[in-house]
Amino acid sequence: MSLYSEILEQPQRAAALLVSQKKLTLEIAAAIQQHNIQYVFLAARGTSDNAGRYANYLLGARNSLPLALATPSLFTYYKRPPKLKNALVMGVSQSGQSPDIVSVLAEGQRQGCLTLAITNEPESPLAAQADFVIDLQAGPEKAVAATKTYTAELLAIAMLSTALSESKKGWEELEQVAGWMEHALQQDAFIAERVQRYRYITQTVVLGRGYNYATAFEWGLKLKELTYIIAEPYSSADFQHGPIAMVDHGFPVMAVAPQGKVFDSMLETLQQLRHEIAAELVVISNDHKALSLAQTPIPIPAETPEWLTPLVSILPAQLFAYYLTLAKGYDAEQPRSIRKVTETH
Amino acid sequence: MSLYSEILEQPQRAAALLVSQKKLTLEIAAAIQQHNIQYVFLAARGTSDNAGRYANYLLGARNSLPLALATPSLFTYYKRPPKLKNALVMGVSQSGQSPDIVSVLAEGQRQGCLTLAITNEPESPLAAQADFVIDLQAGPEKAVAATKTYTAELLAIAMLSTALSESKKGWEELEQVAGWMEHALQQDAFIAERVQRYRYITQTVVLGRGYNYATAFEWGLKLKELTYIIAEPYSSADFQHGPIAMVDHGFPVMAVAPQGKVFDSMLETLQQLRHEIAAELVVISNDHKALSLAQTPIPIPAETPEWLTPLVSILPAQLFAYYLTLAKGYDAEQPRSIRKVTETH
Repeated sequence: MSLYSEILEQPQRAAALLVSQKKLTLEIAAAIQQHNIQYVFLAARGTSDNAGRYANYLLGARNSLPLALATPSLFTYYKRPPKLKNALVMGVSQSGQSPDIVSVLAEGQRQGCLTLAITNEPESPLAAQADFVIDLQAGPEKAVAATKTYTAELLAIAMLSTALSESKKGWEELEQVAGWMEHALQQDAFIAERVQRYRYITQTVVLGRGYNYATAFEWGLKLKELTYIIAEPYSSADFQHGPIAMVDHGFPVMAVAPQGKVFDSMLETLQQLRHEIAAELVVISNDHKALSLAQTPIPIPAETPEWLTPLVSILPAQLFAYYLTLAKGYDAEQPRSIRKVTETH
Repeated sequence: MSLYSEILEQPQRAAALLVSQKKLTLEIAAAIQQHNIQYVFLAARGTSDNAGRYANYLLGARNSLPLALATPSLFTYYKRPPKLKNALVMGVSQSGQSPDIVSVLAEGQRQGCLTLAITNEPESPLAAQADFVIDLQAGPEKAVAATKTYTAELLAIAMLSTALSESKKGWEELEQVAGWMEHALQQDAFIAERVQRYRYITQTVVLGRGYNYATAFEWGLKLKELTYIIAEPYSSADFQHGPIAMVDHGFPVMAVAPQGKVFDSMLETLQQLRHEIAAELVVISNDHKALSLAQTPIPIPAETPEWLTPLVSILPAQLFAYYLTLAKGYDAEQPRSIRKVTETH
């Protein structure tokens, strides 16, 4: 039962991380401002890469910082790392073990860049290559599918963004995240029952945009790792540029569509899917228009500000993947073919 | 029959583009060197975004230039564009019409950045926002699914990279691309017959790495747009970090695995898929070890240098998607739910 208990302990882990790492994120923000940083160069894989997608939008929208996702094979196989002048080189990894991610930070250090590791293992090889290490302090994550380390990574990134913007309101909102997460977990019993409807799906697409582009990827990854269904994530805009052709009557579409700047764009796609194509919709949202389009509406707290919705909306998505795994009769603790620590080069 | 004839005319279009735009790419390279460019900030959607993935590896490995993929919603919905100091701002679009891509170049101009448009429509709104415009000169692309504009985009990027590296050998290799493309098209009859085996697949994953990460995305996109199967692209490394769990006995996996720096990594994944999981493999390669693992091996010319394999390997992939569309009884010219010009914000 590690996976289920790790999902449930996320609000408490988030509250603790906010207290323990606030001072450090303020120090990192000061160092970033001293180093004439012009963009962030981020290396991550799997779940941590999805946290990187959140950083891409958050650091862009709130801190005007462009973000480039590293292509680790340039560092490992091609041995042609790019010139990283004026970049903050950042590695995100639960285990801090994967050699390709470590090699990006090592190259950043070699080039004299400011380096930052975000990891649950502060004694890991990744941490050893970094000027600063944010320790996620999520406790041991025993289930192979990452849950609490993902939300801890999101929170660390949100704290860093808030430290950079020196936003008092930002810190006040961060203090409410754990409460909104608890609130979202109240959908537990509803989701446990409702997944029965999806016992026989074999494929789906998962839509999100803006801050919740990350949530679409992470929901999709949990579904793939645990339930073995094909679950391809998209921004609603990229989805319109071709892949929407796949969707036909009854095709299941998962969507994360909370209120905010990209809501109207998401709503338009959901309306087309429901009214023109007759797709099946599972929607996580705090807007009644989006929820009312869904055969399976999953509400999250109305007051969650858009920039923090990824920390809240992923919780019911994790529960959905967990219960669907049980409904399909698979092992939620030990998925086939994958290990907790994947070492790629 | 537009789609089929557009696939076949690619070698001739490539040969013509190489002649007509060489001088311009040398001028753009000189401007890039004058402007103290530290990274490329690239905006694109759909097929053009896949050309951007090629640019990410090519400009990194051959020109030491990091590349950040733009998140257009930061410019349109969030209205919080990042600070683009020292960036080359680049837009890639067949039509040059999509407002979100145009807005990224407009912001680049507003911030005083060097801007470059790569488009098949030199009179388009995108071209109007750019200091330099590479005209793809692919002729009208009538089929909704892009083919010849994709290889023209790849070639334009390869020419720019070669101009930046001032590589005589690079230009010599570029002159042979059209011949290698012709050679790859000789698989036409084999593929037309062989797709029968895949008449009833409904899902697949498409693997590539390094330069051919782009090819995996583009092959996947053609399959989704035309055959309506779920076809999710991955780098073989990301695939190991979770999604490999989806694959079971007989699950069809498409792979692009030519010889080169990442070949051993791809081969290891293919061996695991075939020998441990008993997956079904369709492999495009110029290496007999990779081809011999496949139930459906599709050879490309042995002498193609790794950096140019994406221009060659996508041709049999396009033919595969085209013939599978016919085998499944769908309309290859006008896929459902999508239009030639998609305008997203």
